[in-house]
Amino acid sequence: MTEPFVVVGGDAAGMSAASKAKRDDPDLEVVVFEKGEWVSYGACGLPYYVKGEIQSLEALVSVTPEEFREERGINLRTGHEVVAIDPDGQTVTAEPLDGGEPIVQSYDHLLLATGAEAVVPSIDGTDREGVYTLGSMSDGKELREYVARARTRKSFQQPDRGPACRYLEDCVGPVAVVGGGYVGLEMAEALAANGFEVNVFQRGDRLLNGFSEATSEAVADHLREEDVLVHLGTDVLELTGDDAVEAVVTDEGRIDVEMVLLGTGVRPRTALAEAAGIDLGETGAIATDAYCETNVPDVYAAGDCAEAAHTVTGDPVYVPLALTANRHGRAVGQTVAGTPTEGGSVAGTAAIKVFDVEAARTGILDHEEATAAGFDPVTKTIDANSRAGYYPEGGTVTVTLTADRQTGRVLGGSLVSEYGEGAVHRSHAIVGALEEEATVFDLEDYDLAYAPPFNTTWDPVLVAAKVLSGTLR
Amino acid sequence: MTEPFVVVGGDAAGMSAASKAKRDDPDLEVVVFEKGEWVSYGACGLPYYVKGEIQSLEALVSVTPEEFREERGINLRTGHEVVAIDPDGQTVTAEPLDGGEPIVQSYDHLLLATGAEAVVPSIDGTDREGVYTLGSMSDGKELREYVARARTRKSFQQPDRGPACRYLEDCVGPVAVVGGGYVGLEMAEALAANGFEVNVFQRGDRLLNGFSEATSEAVADHLREEDVLVHLGTDVLELTGDDAVEAVVTDEGRIDVEMVLLGTGVRPRTALAEAAGIDLGETGAIATDAYCETNVPDVYAAGDCAEAAHTVTGDPVYVPLALTANRHGRAVGQTVAGTPTEGGSVAGTAAIKVFDVEAARTGILDHEEATAAGFDPVTKTIDANSRAGYYPEGGTVTVTLTADRQTGRVLGGSLVSEYGEGAVHRSHAIVGALEEEATVFDLEDYDLAYAPPFNTTWDPVLVAAKVLSGTLR
Repeated sequence: MTEPFVVVGGDAAGMSAASKAKRDDPDLEVVVFEKGEWVSYGACGLPYYVKGEIQSLEALVSVTPEEFREERGINLRTGHEVVAIDPDGQTVTAEPLDGGEPIVQSYDHLLLATGAEAVVPSIDGTDREGVYTLGSMSDGKELREYVARARTRKSFQQPDRGPACRYLEDCVGPVAVVGGGYVGLEMAEALAANGFEVNVFQRGDRLLNGFSEATSEAVADHLREEDVLVHLGTDVLELTGDDAVEAVVTDEGRIDVEMVLLGTGVRPRTALAEAAGIDLGETGAIATDAYCETNVPDVYAAGDCAEAAHTVTGDPVYVPLALTANRHGRAVGQTVAGTPTEGGSVAGTAAIKVFDVEAARTGILDHEEATAAGFDPVTKTIDANSRAGYYPEGGTVTVTLTADRQTGRVLGGSLVSEYGEGAVHRSHAIVGALEEEATVFDLEDYDLAYAPPFNTTWDPVLVAAKVLSGTLR
Repeated sequence: MTEPFVVVGGDAAGMSAASKAKRDDPDLEVVVFEKGEWVSYGACGLPYYVKGEIQSLEALVSVTPEEFREERGINLRTGHEVVAIDPDGQTVTAEPLDGGEPIVQSYDHLLLATGAEAVVPSIDGTDREGVYTLGSMSDGKELREYVARARTRKSFQQPDRGPACRYLEDCVGPVAVVGGGYVGLEMAEALAANGFEVNVFQRGDRLLNGFSEATSEAVADHLREEDVLVHLGTDVLELTGDDAVEAVVTDEGRIDVEMVLLGTGVRPRTALAEAAGIDLGETGAIATDAYCETNVPDVYAAGDCAEAAHTVTGDPVYVPLALTANRHGRAVGQTVAGTPTEGGSVAGTAAIKVFDVEAARTGILDHEEATAAGFDPVTKTIDANSRAGYYPEGGTVTVTLTADRQTGRVLGGSLVSEYGEGAVHRSHAIVGALEEEATVFDLEDYDLAYAPPFNTTWDPVLVAAKVLSGTLR
């Protein structure tokens, strides 16, 4: 008798796998255990919910538990935490969080889609009231409630901090965002737009580490234009206060704040896998093969808990992003339903909007990383008009392109522009080149779309390719 | 002794070649003969000049004749028409239009960049006053002057034509645009935005022939929303009137107009080449090899007068667009200066903005054309959100994708969205796939950038690839 396909974790990877498996093989029993109450939600949308651009958490849910159960025929058990896996017996043990009896569930195939959790830095004071992370729906709910309370109160007395707080007559805060990555910067926008004086603390000397320096600088400049106080090269040492946080102590001094958002990255949730003898990779996430299968046969891992192969190097990397989770989950569902399907590689492509700026990055930009992978990297950055020079209302697109000096192979790219001027969608051309192992000479010859409202005759991506190839010939 | 590099025609292809040759080999003498007074101008910008979004024709000029002469050291002779080529003697004969003595100019390398001219359909009445084409700067000037006169006058009495003319209290016109291609539709927008009641006549049953049907329909729907009267499947038989045009007579009846814009395509200017024994291809444009060289050694042709190889089929095609002209001109300049450089293929990629809609197309979409090239085409069209469903102010992107059923190879794509929602820049992914002969299975796995302000987790291009690949497995 066939045992079910069991999925641990009901977000992007887990529900993509469950849905695809059930669609491809309607006779297959699919059981999903999810610890929380929310499934298949867009965590990427949480900053916009906190900002107030999205009015309900429910709006972030693409498919409800009821729809999974009733329309897709998936045995979805929310409020159940899987506490153990027995790979030999091919069972998992799940505990109902309402205190009922543990369930022992057999499986033929198991998918670990346990996701990631926000990293809390190992400094004093992170347990004080007023210190938040943004990883889960409940985090989002708490932050939105905090914003609403603070805006109502508006009683916090602050010293004069210069040009900040253009949004409201009386500024709220000040507050701190620790970490200048996606979540940190999206939350800086969300808070600033609500009238908070926002301090962003970044240990390194630039924001958005994975992007090019030109992109990081453009984003930092824009944040400052929006009156966000950007503290680069600043190490947060301690969060002080009585019960509630009252100040951020850094190696540069002390800044009073009434709230701290920790945006210091995520780490894969791997405890369950480790306890069952499932191998982790060097990145600390669950190691998988091309089919997202772990070292234990019939046990798969996908999404923010798992590694994936890098498009450029082929090496395992940990890039916890939404598209990979969806894609790999879907591939596992297809495999389990009878059509072995590779998960596909990840190019580390990412996009972000910060106030009125958009940026994207893909592939390998860091020269140390490229050199370690056996390449001889060379990088060029260009500025180009986002529309024909004579066409109204255009802006600038800054494109950074990295290639291998010996072969010309495109290794990575980073783009930034005003929001709406196409840095993000233009990155599609560079991703295409990466995926196909194309050279910068190839990319230079791509017959990209042109019309005056969209670019100059040579799209900024082509300009970058042309300039970079010129240094290689 | 080395003779100069001679270029016939001073627009995109010609000036790109001249500039590149001179930059790469500063000792090379470069002579350009241009019949008119304008060089290196963006004809693509003319509709926006007529519309009034661009205030001067000079704004369309990227580099002035003085700059070419003084800063780039090019011997640019405007007002000189080349009337003969002697391929054996390696000379051209140029006549100054001011009546001076003809010049016989020797060359080592010759580039024909004679461009294209607007096709005037062979119907009666095209020589009447009030009948325009839009190919040259002087055409643009005349049209803008016409628009200004008509708006000042506003005296034309028109019958009630329904919901047209939302722009001004009293509508101007009516006017006719014959042809529903790029120029026709951009001019329909330019005229409608100036308060004209605009009739667009298209012989075939849809606009924008080279795009997908879904794109054509979306554009036609939007034109109607903007009160443009779209007459599909309507053959214009005659333009009647006394001196000036007064009506368009079609197989569907007669419509009074006070002006007609002929947007019925362009044809390559080849007379000079033909007279010199230079071969034309089957398309009627000058035949060239991969280096843009004609059948006569050392004589090149590039831009709107020449054929180019299609990216998908490798066959010679005639696709007179700006990027190809620039790219091929540049390649010829590089070749002539000592580094043999291929011009690169053309995918027929094109973009257009019509009012608040943007669209792009690339590759082969037409099933007859694909079948003739040996493919077994299959096409799918999908609608997808342009931003995450929960993110404010998004729209819809409609993507049509065509692939070969046997191999999965991507053959072409067509996209349409609201202006600013990224149909055009998203096409970059499909162009990348075409250029690299990728399959729809490859494209489906592209790690494209995602964030809620830019797409759903699967970009619309990926959704299209996923749906199309699903029909092939």
